[in-house]
Amino acid sequence: LVTKSPIKRKTTTGKVLITPVPFGEIDDKPLRLLEEHNISYMINPIGRRLREDELVEIIREYEALIAGTEPITAHVLQHAHNLRLIARVGVGLDNIDLNFARERGIAITYTPDAPSPAIADLTIAQMLAALRYTHAADRDMRKGVWRSRTGRSLSGCTIGVIGVGRTGRHVIRHLHSWDPIRILANDLVVDDELAKVLDFVWADKETIYRQADIITLHVPLTPQTRNMIGTKELAMMKEEAILINTSRGGVVNEVALVDTLRKRPSFIAAIDVFENEPYSGEMTSLENCLLTCHMGSATRDCRLRMEIEAVREVIHYFTGQPFINEVPEYEYRMQIVK
Amino acid sequence: LVTKSPIKRKTTTGKVLITPVPFGEIDDKPLRLLEEHNISYMINPIGRRLREDELVEIIREYEALIAGTEPITAHVLQHAHNLRLIARVGVGLDNIDLNFARERGIAITYTPDAPSPAIADLTIAQMLAALRYTHAADRDMRKGVWRSRTGRSLSGCTIGVIGVGRTGRHVIRHLHSWDPIRILANDLVVDDELAKVLDFVWADKETIYRQADIITLHVPLTPQTRNMIGTKELAMMKEEAILINTSRGGVVNEVALVDTLRKRPSFIAAIDVFENEPYSGEMTSLENCLLTCHMGSATRDCRLRMEIEAVREVIHYFTGQPFINEVPEYEYRMQIVK
Repeated sequence: LVTKSPIKRKTTTGKVLITPVPFGEIDDKPLRLLEEHNISYMINPIGRRLREDELVEIIREYEALIAGTEPITAHVLQHAHNLRLIARVGVGLDNIDLNFARERGIAITYTPDAPSPAIADLTIAQMLAALRYTHAADRDMRKGVWRSRTGRSLSGCTIGVIGVGRTGRHVIRHLHSWDPIRILANDLVVDDELAKVLDFVWADKETIYRQADIITLHVPLTPQTRNMIGTKELAMMKEEAILINTSRGGVVNEVALVDTLRKRPSFIAAIDVFENEPYSGEMTSLENCLLTCHMGSATRDCRLRMEIEAVREVIHYFTGQPFINEVPEYEYRMQIVK
Repeated sequence: LVTKSPIKRKTTTGKVLITPVPFGEIDDKPLRLLEEHNISYMINPIGRRLREDELVEIIREYEALIAGTEPITAHVLQHAHNLRLIARVGVGLDNIDLNFARERGIAITYTPDAPSPAIADLTIAQMLAALRYTHAADRDMRKGVWRSRTGRSLSGCTIGVIGVGRTGRHVIRHLHSWDPIRILANDLVVDDELAKVLDFVWADKETIYRQADIITLHVPLTPQTRNMIGTKELAMMKEEAILINTSRGGVVNEVALVDTLRKRPSFIAAIDVFENEPYSGEMTSLENCLLTCHMGSATRDCRLRMEIEAVREVIHYFTGQPFINEVPEYEYRMQIVK
């Protein structure tokens, strides 16, 4: 394990473990910020997402964890004797046992706003790619096949947006540049004012499954959303429906999805997130599935903003200032309610 | 050659040759419209874009041609003894010798508005794909490689739009949903009112080449635009520039582009149109090139609208009504001026 020492070397051991890969590579500003505050850190020595057993072994000494999507389970937390802060780089909290962490007096912060624009971009990219078969055309041409496929225009479509949080709202704003477009949305909280401002119609999930040409998911993974889209829901969807998942893998049941993609060649899915990542399952051999590798937030400006926001929370911890984005109460409750 | 007979069979020989492939396949309404007017037609018997020699052989007897992108040269027109109307399905006229056709008393119509929304969709699709490496991720995953690439957000980019006609305007309207975004545009005619309404800045081409993160071309192929983007222009572009061409192949010099793509791995091109189509050249082996096969207008609604508009012109010809979209005078002039 290589421990990076701070510039001023006032502290002798690492205080912060940084697990996301990459980190500080686009721009070293996040690391410089830590160094300027004499906060020593260690960057993930394995260079990929840590497994639970690896994290258990490494985490013991650290007071703060700048966290990615690795499993921060009760088991891990039981070995994190010095841990007082988890600063999540990102917005999803399904990998952290929030309530167990709280019991052990560990504060948790996240970066809720930073990833949304980048995730929305990937979502629109995959909608258009799926409507126009651009991936298939590129593949064909590399095999020497010139075969134009007739797709569909985004304008005129009915779009179902499930989850109207930060990312869902960004997606809706982009979609309106394709007027006329019909946007049906669903969320736990029905806010009529929001629907008016963003120009969409609230609908129940079944209406969305049955009526939408494109269905896009922007929900967190919680006990209520796990397997939200299964065999029954997929069967309700239009013959030529497009399903986009840039949220979390467990929200769509993968066995049911693979079965649907196999049986219905006109049904298209664009999947960025998987139950187990890295993913190498059956979808990788299906023509009607567009694959990306959990890269919703993978833009330079978005990553940098997320990294700096997480680092700021760590600095606030060590300098005794209040946190900027502590994980709100409802995130804790959502992990309990079934 | 199979000649489709009209339902009422009042005419015994085909009067109209339909060359675009496919035609009337998404919806047979365009063919039904011809049949309802007792206008007999023959659909392209070869099933792909006709070569000049093939067209010479076939065209002789026909009075009207519903045309695609096949070469309608002086040589072809010399053999088109009965031809009185070319109804182009689409907007590009570079495949037709307009002035020679006029000399022979042949009217020419086109469908200028129909393709723009679909071409704009493909343009935005390829911008986002290039910014996020989605094609590369899909290819990787199918080879069992899970490798997230850090891309760029569209918001915050400087976009250079060359050609602010129907398609360029559609593209600009979509781009504004990614505010903050900086749009530099260039056209033959500088209209300050248009720049105000669409919220862009007029710039000369060199400024665009040097400053834009993404350059997108929406010009016709004319003597002035042929080879508009060559070695010199490519050399001005940013190290990580993205060049999108959904206009016409000859606008970008392919030898210069291939050379640039080979030498500059961070430079990305998304190319839909080629000097010679079907294309099977060197670009098909380059990782930093996204390929599609001249499918800008290939959406069902757009194709159907184009087909119906072309058919309407043919009906107007046979029923003695004025044309709806006769090719305007400046299109003829542009083919002469060098």
